[in-house]
Amino acid sequence: MRGRHKIASGFGPLSPCVDRFTTMGYRDPVPLDEQFKQAAGIEGLSGVCLDYPSQLENIDEARRLIRLHDFALATVSPGIYYNRKWKLGTFSNPDPGVRREAVEITRQTMDVASGLGAEDILVWPAYDGFDYPFEADYQRGWGYLVEGIGEAASYRSDIRIAVEYKRQEIRNSLYVRNAGTLLSLLGEIGLENVGGVVDYGHSLAAGENPAEAATILHRAGKLFQVHINDNYRDWDHDMIPGTVSFWETLEFFYWMFRLGYDGWYIVDIFPYRLDGEAAFQDGVRQTEYFLEAAVRIQSPELEECLMRNDTLAADALIRPRIFL
Amino acid sequence: MRGRHKIASGFGPLSPCVDRFTTMGYRDPVPLDEQFKQAAGIEGLSGVCLDYPSQLENIDEARRLIRLHDFALATVSPGIYYNRKWKLGTFSNPDPGVRREAVEITRQTMDVASGLGAEDILVWPAYDGFDYPFEADYQRGWGYLVEGIGEAASYRSDIRIAVEYKRQEIRNSLYVRNAGTLLSLLGEIGLENVGGVVDYGHSLAAGENPAEAATILHRAGKLFQVHINDNYRDWDHDMIPGTVSFWETLEFFYWMFRLGYDGWYIVDIFPYRLDGEAAFQDGVRQTEYFLEAAVRIQSPELEECLMRNDTLAADALIRPRIFL
Amino acid sequence: MRGRHKIASGFGPLSPCVDRFTTMGYRDPVPLDEQFKQAAGIEGLSGVCLDYPSQLENIDEARRLIRLHDFALATVSPGIYYNRKWKLGTFSNPDPGVRREAVEITRQTMDVASGLGAEDILVWPAYDGFDYPFEADYQRGWGYLVEGIGEAASYRSDIRIAVEYKRQEIRNSLYVRNAGTLLSLLGEIGLENVGGVVDYGHSLAAGENPAEAATILHRAGKLFQVHINDNYRDWDHDMIPGTVSFWETLEFFYWMFRLGYDGWYIVDIFPYRLDGEAAFQDGVRQTEYFLEAAVRIQSPELEECLMRNDTLAADALIRPRIFL
Amino acid sequence: MRGRHKIASGFGPLSPCVDRFTTMGYRDPVPLDEQFKQAAGIEGLSGVCLDYPSQLENIDEARRLIRLHDFALATVSPGIYYNRKWKLGTFSNPDPGVRREAVEITRQTMDVASGLGAEDILVWPAYDGFDYPFEADYQRGWGYLVEGIGEAASYRSDIRIAVEYKRQEIRNSLYVRNAGTLLSLLGEIGLENVGGVVDYGHSLAAGENPAEAATILHRAGKLFQVHINDNYRDWDHDMIPGTVSFWETLEFFYWMFRLGYDGWYIVDIFPYRLDGEAAFQDGVRQTEYFLEAAVRIQSPELEECLMRNDTLAADALIRPRIFL
Repeated sequence: MRGRHKIASGFGPLSPCVDRFTTMGYRDPVPLDEQFKQAAGIEGLSGVCLDYPSQLENIDEARRLIRLHDFALATVSPGIYYNRKWKLGTFSNPDPGVRREAVEITRQTMDVASGLGAEDILVWPAYDGFDYPFEADYQRGWGYLVEGIGEAASYRSDIRIAVEYKRQEIRNSLYVRNAGTLLSLLGEIGLENVGGVVDYGHSLAAGENPAEAATILHRAGKLFQVHINDNYRDWDHDMIPGTVSFWETLEFFYWMFRLGYDGWYIVDIFPYRLDGEAAFQDGVRQTEYFLEAAVRIQSPELEECLMRNDTLAADALIRPRIFL
Repeated sequence: MRGRHKIASGFGPLSPCVDRFTTMGYRDPVPLDEQFKQAAGIEGLSGVCLDYPSQLENIDEARRLIRLHDFALATVSPGIYYNRKWKLGTFSNPDPGVRREAVEITRQTMDVASGLGAEDILVWPAYDGFDYPFEADYQRGWGYLVEGIGEAASYRSDIRIAVEYKRQEIRNSLYVRNAGTLLSLLGEIGLENVGGVVDYGHSLAAGENPAEAATILHRAGKLFQVHINDNYRDWDHDMIPGTVSFWETLEFFYWMFRLGYDGWYIVDIFPYRLDGEAAFQDGVRQTEYFLEAAVRIQSPELEECLMRNDTLAADALIRPRIFL
Repeated sequence: MRGRHKIASGFGPLSPCVDRFTTMGYRDPVPLDEQFKQAAGIEGLSGVCLDYPSQLENIDEARRLIRLHDFALATVSPGIYYNRKWKLGTFSNPDPGVRREAVEITRQTMDVASGLGAEDILVWPAYDGFDYPFEADYQRGWGYLVEGIGEAASYRSDIRIAVEYKRQEIRNSLYVRNAGTLLSLLGEIGLENVGGVVDYGHSLAAGENPAEAATILHRAGKLFQVHINDNYRDWDHDMIPGTVSFWETLEFFYWMFRLGYDGWYIVDIFPYRLDGEAAFQDGVRQTEYFLEAAVRIQSPELEECLMRNDTLAADALIRPRIFL
Repeated sequence: MRGRHKIASGFGPLSPCVDRFTTMGYRDPVPLDEQFKQAAGIEGLSGVCLDYPSQLENIDEARRLIRLHDFALATVSPGIYYNRKWKLGTFSNPDPGVRREAVEITRQTMDVASGLGAEDILVWPAYDGFDYPFEADYQRGWGYLVEGIGEAASYRSDIRIAVEYKRQEIRNSLYVRNAGTLLSLLGEIGLENVGGVVDYGHSLAAGENPAEAATILHRAGKLFQVHINDNYRDWDHDMIPGTVSFWETLEFFYWMFRLGYDGWYIVDIFPYRLDGEAAFQDGVRQTEYFLEAAVRIQSPELEECLMRNDTLAADALIRPRIFL
């Protein structure tokens, strides 16, 4: 495997990074094989994440490219966003045909993941929610969501489903909005192979402390994936890790160490106005930095400080191991 | 019973309403019997909420005052805030002696509630959380919280415990920060008599839609209490209900109707700079307004609109039943 | 003129309404003449807003379409967003060539506006700001901004420039972020024909009360335009007016009446997942509703209540004129 | 002078630090001479800030204590908060008697500052604003504010008034809410001796970048004071500097260096649940750290990166000068 850590990413940083005003994006699209080639130039990147079917129409070609560049396939996502047909929801869509389609594509994605050796699939129900007050039937919506994800997951128990939460965007308000909501959803689904993702930036923007969010998922045996990025707590800006909330990022990686998390660290940035490859490389470097800094700061003394909630003492232990 | 709805309140609006700068408060304190007398002047108020032991040192006197003014006792709260001894947590305090004390006072409050005929007790773990990154041991904190609330609740199964969530304040970041976190906590505790509260304003400030938050608690059979107030989503300003977020307040009461909620509506306002009694009366009036407006707007047609997520059609049905 | 109020809009609601994930948008694009035809079907809409050059490449054709459908041209915007070349700023771009281009296109837009009879042009410096800490040279950035807008405006004094503020988006953090920043910018530019816009939703998301924001611009003689929409204060969701923040919307229109504002009310919504024409019509209807409700609630008694800051009394006057 | 930097503070960290629930505070009050003694034990603290009249009833005694402990008096604040009489505003109160009183106490504070050798007085109009929609008459409120501060300031031109902005708290919404609003207020007052304060945490919580906020005040010659602390952008938690928003704190101090700011750095923390003296010492230490780190990272190369808005290059220059 390339790289010394389990650091992966999708090809967002190598894509146009469209925003709602800059509809042609900030760079021209490049074909998948070129994206692989660019990703292969990123030092420290050991895995990739792909969408099904948009990037996996030709599975053999994908397999070839993954092997060619010595990547692992970290995860696969079903294409339940990108398309206006999902606008009123995927698993929770009022239309039973659309709900059925969401289940089907999720099951197909599990097969694809299995065929390509991925550990899990990543399900982000970003259209499942509502935009306005007096828009949704919350009882039905939640019922459909539980039912649909459960139905998809029960298809095969050997592939895990990692569900990602977010408070806002794509819909103005999402059902699976934070770690607690996710946990209660997982509890209701009640299947071993369905767990969760903490996206660091989604957690911040949901008003959480990401380390704590990860811990409560871990306590329930449900921390399947983590995504790394940063923002100003207002919105999912998908910035380079550690560039805004340094301390909470360090704390997050510290708790990953403490919890013994051994899954992928998926760099999930969207460098609209930066050079895509340079930002990508920096995102991976920062992830390496925090992985290693977390080990450097850990000690029995620090555990002891946290046990007695003594943040001043904890701080005094950490700073000399971080700063010049 | 006084009033035509189950509307209750604590005596916050009749208290000094201190803030951290205005430490003498905005009005002079009055004794409990005077607060009862003032509350008895509030039309539409049928229940009161009291704290133990601060307002219940003399239980017989409290019983006398409740009866004298023909109030119901809606709920009782254990005094696990107000005092600096809880500053590092109540049920999750690193000190086992403080944790024990939190359990004890909660159990005593259950006895008091039982003796005075309250339906449940209200537990708000407002000191259980953290202020800084690298302050708390999240694993221990959560473990203690689950254990302590469970231990308290298992004391007697005939009195229910309603746990209240909030994102920020008193600590900068609270463990039980939103409806989902609360639900997952309740799931882990796993006791029939432990459920939750949706405080409308806490829900808004936690980045939720309060109607949806109440619905997910209801789906799990855990909606024990609701508190009513309003704010600007940034902080728990405890304003008069419906004065800022009109539509989401109406939607909240609509869903209370839809869910068949038959518990108390606890007006929880903190009118720092308003006349206390006038604000109190207005808070109760607004609650009555929304309870009645919710019934007025409900119809099979509206249910149908929500089932198909058609907010424009829902809106067209609602407006003529609300506006001149 | 069509319609009984000065209500205008761009053609956003009739456009694909792309988001960063749904890059093909939520509806297919239609040509300009078809958009005009659809807009002509919106009752109460009396003016349109166009972008230069994207919608005004053929000025004669635009003039024909405006006249054909009996619209007024409310305002014209220079195309200083939409294109990646502006990604590091327009008037404040570090590259003098790009800054020059921003000035040039703004001047051309003034000529076009003059030729088509618009009252002013609308300048939204949405790329002028920064994404990361340690990215911008704030001194230079601000200097360039003042200089560039001033240079553009001094080209001809008979056409007014209305500058629009926003806190976040397109850049993560914009220079002209709120009404106060805008006012201080206008003060520094010091030209009669440069003023400001209050976009209701930008104001909410900037942590302001929109009525107050408009008032401080008005006090300085700088309230040139208002834009109408709504959101949850977290982000510029461009929702239908009055659907979230009812009271502050009513208060905003009340102060427009009090201030004697006689400019355009520009409905600025982005109905991603709603039917475009239906949402457009509803946006105009709501604007009419609030314009008329503002007149209905105004009275000397209400002015008197506000003069003595008595919100309970104000509320008691307003409710019976609004609610059934 | 004690200390090697111009670092000052009020005695907040040595006070009870009341919150609205913990009304007895988190520590017992100590008399002023004891606070001075404790402050004298804080290494690196060179100045103190006092309130008039609450801490300056006996001016000779205050002078004695200041000299005894070799402090400078950084600034003096008029007591226009703390007391319920200001609840509807100070300079903008609807009652002319209260407005007059605000002007008078401010003028007296100028005299006191002059007598004790302070550079300026600090005016925080924290009650000037509103709590509810339809509460305030924004035109009158703003007019009174401009008039009142101007009237106070014109009393003597040799003492400067530093006006502090904040978005929320004590009122739910303050008139002088951000740097831009403050600047436009200062422009309207138009007096040389009236300028502004950037409180780092107020700036964050107002949706600003504090370094940029300070820069726009500096460009207008109006940066009179800076206050240092930290928070999560949601509320003014008054935490220890640099413990949350590390990068923006460093950037703030970097720009202080770039702008040549030579005034006081006032540590403004409110350590509710920490040991007061230890937190105080840490607050001063962090301020020293950032003052020195700002000098360490500055270079012509960094200026060059910022000039061309190249944050990746800037970051690459800064990190090796900060991190191990």
